[in-house]
Amino acid sequence: MQKRDLLYAGKAKSVYLSDDPQRLVLHFRDDTSAFDGKKKEALERKGMVNNKFNAFIMEKLQAAGIPTHFEQLLSDTECVVKKMEMIPVECVVRNLAAGGLVRRLGVEEGIALNPPTFELFLKNDEKGDPMINESLAETFGWATPEQLATMKSLTFRVNDVLKQLFLDGGMLLVDYKLEFGLFEGEIVLGDEFSPDGCRLWDAETREKLDKDRFRQGLGGVIEAYEEVGRRLGMSFD
Amino acid sequence: MQKRDLLYAGKAKSVYLSDDPQRLVLHFRDDTSAFDGKKKEALERKGMVNNKFNAFIMEKLQAAGIPTHFEQLLSDTECVVKKMEMIPVECVVRNLAAGGLVRRLGVEEGIALNPPTFELFLKNDEKGDPMINESLAETFGWATPEQLATMKSLTFRVNDVLKQLFLDGGMLLVDYKLEFGLFEGEIVLGDEFSPDGCRLWDAETREKLDKDRFRQGLGGVIEAYEEVGRRLGMSFD
Ligand SMILES: Nc1ncnc2c1ncn2[C@@H]1O[C@H](COP(=O)(O)OP(=O)(O)O)[C@@H](O)[C@H]1O
Ligand SMILES: Nc1ncnc2c1ncn2[C@@H]1O[C@H](COP(=O)(O)OP(=O)(O)O)[C@@H](O)[C@H]1O
Ligand SMILES: [Mg+2]
Ligand SMILES: [Mg+2]
Repeated sequence: MQKRDLLYAGKAKSVYLSDDPQRLVLHFRDDTSAFDGKKKEALERKGMVNNKFNAFIMEKLQAAGIPTHFEQLLSDTECVVKKMEMIPVECVVRNLAAGGLVRRLGVEEGIALNPPTFELFLKNDEKGDPMINESLAETFGWATPEQLATMKSLTFRVNDVLKQLFLDGGMLLVDYKLEFGLFEGEIVLGDEFSPDGCRLWDAETREKLDKDRFRQGLGGVIEAYEEVGRRLGMSFD
Repeated sequence: MQKRDLLYAGKAKSVYLSDDPQRLVLHFRDDTSAFDGKKKEALERKGMVNNKFNAFIMEKLQAAGIPTHFEQLLSDTECVVKKMEMIPVECVVRNLAAGGLVRRLGVEEGIALNPPTFELFLKNDEKGDPMINESLAETFGWATPEQLATMKSLTFRVNDVLKQLFLDGGMLLVDYKLEFGLFEGEIVLGDEFSPDGCRLWDAETREKLDKDRFRQGLGGVIEAYEEVGRRLGMSFD
């Protein structure tokens, strides 16, 4: 697999074409951002940690029958994925209240959400990733009702797999954001699953082990990501 | 029908018990508010105009087979309605982009929405009436999935009836908000339908004929409401 031209550079990853027109190379950078890109910093080792973390999780999901774009690791900070047409909609499931939900609805952080909630957001930094819904996505052509139904069902299937996986490592999967794309007409999980795009709390102490450490300036960000990985059996060296 | 104790006073209407335990009296006041109650003013004649406007529309909807709480006019500013347990969720349908949709999604005011969009908001002034969705409504117990499906279907049926009614009067029904309640276990349209809770534009000039005149300080608010009513065949004297 040969890396070719840069296709686009996001806030945390750079996406390269490859010698296979159906495959891309994702380069996980150390760049870390929050608040739609308003807070930015490079956190040493993050690219490597998230690349390996994501590979581990994507393989678990693939093994559970969830179609993902992940193909293989290419280097410490790069992996090969299916080249997809991304759907500009973020799918969020929450098991416990935190973050935007607490801010918007004024509910208490940490309360259990039964059943877990499902929300859609438009992936658009300029517009501040506004909350949308199935109706708006259909009318504005961001996704069809059928695609949205598949995305919702896959997002909940991810919950079934990962809630248990993290619990086995002594952690609570509080919430997470997924992005999907189209590959050969099929809805496939894309982007990444890492502590950058989910909330993970220690099951006993409720210590935050995810990007909220960065958002809230708590420090020990990458140390926490590595700790999460180790508890799941990953090795980063 | 005898009016009894005040049950509660909202921003625009006061709700009274009556000698019939199954019926309430709605008193339409002149009080007008916007921005979750932050802008307030009494607009002379508004209570009378909205009471009669609402009666006219509710009867049209009832005649089209949509269950409503409206029973009869009681005075110029009062009507009798079924006493309901209100569902704290606002249903919004939009035919053209305006207001919050334009602000949130950064789309151009006035573009046609095909198909018309459907959104849910939590009726809660303190929290700023945040956007919600079916999943959040279910998890927080605001409404069941079955109730929400009925509310959505009724809200779109209202569109079929009223879009044409206003068009026949030379107006565009841009968007509107409905509230529903439970009466004897059935989902029934409650609250009011008036230019306070919808957007109406002249079909030719796109002049605003609704509460946006108040929100935007354009003046001629009640004159516009009366003009809308007259175009539909109402008389306010
Ligand atoms: N398999 C894929 N095919 C094409 N694009 C992808 C794929 N997976 C992820 N992407 C896109 O690549 C970009 C990843 O970079 P990232 O730094 O996360 O960007 P952003 O700042 O938009 O979040 C995102 O725009 C994401 O949607
Ligand atoms: N049929 C009904 N039974 C009980 N309550 C109703 C009924 N119709 C409307 N309501 C409620 O009465 C109040 C109407 O007053 P309003 O001034 O519009 O209040 P608000 O400031 O909450 O919008 C609202 O809380 C509305 O939900
Ligand atoms: Mg991203
Ligand atoms: Mg009201």
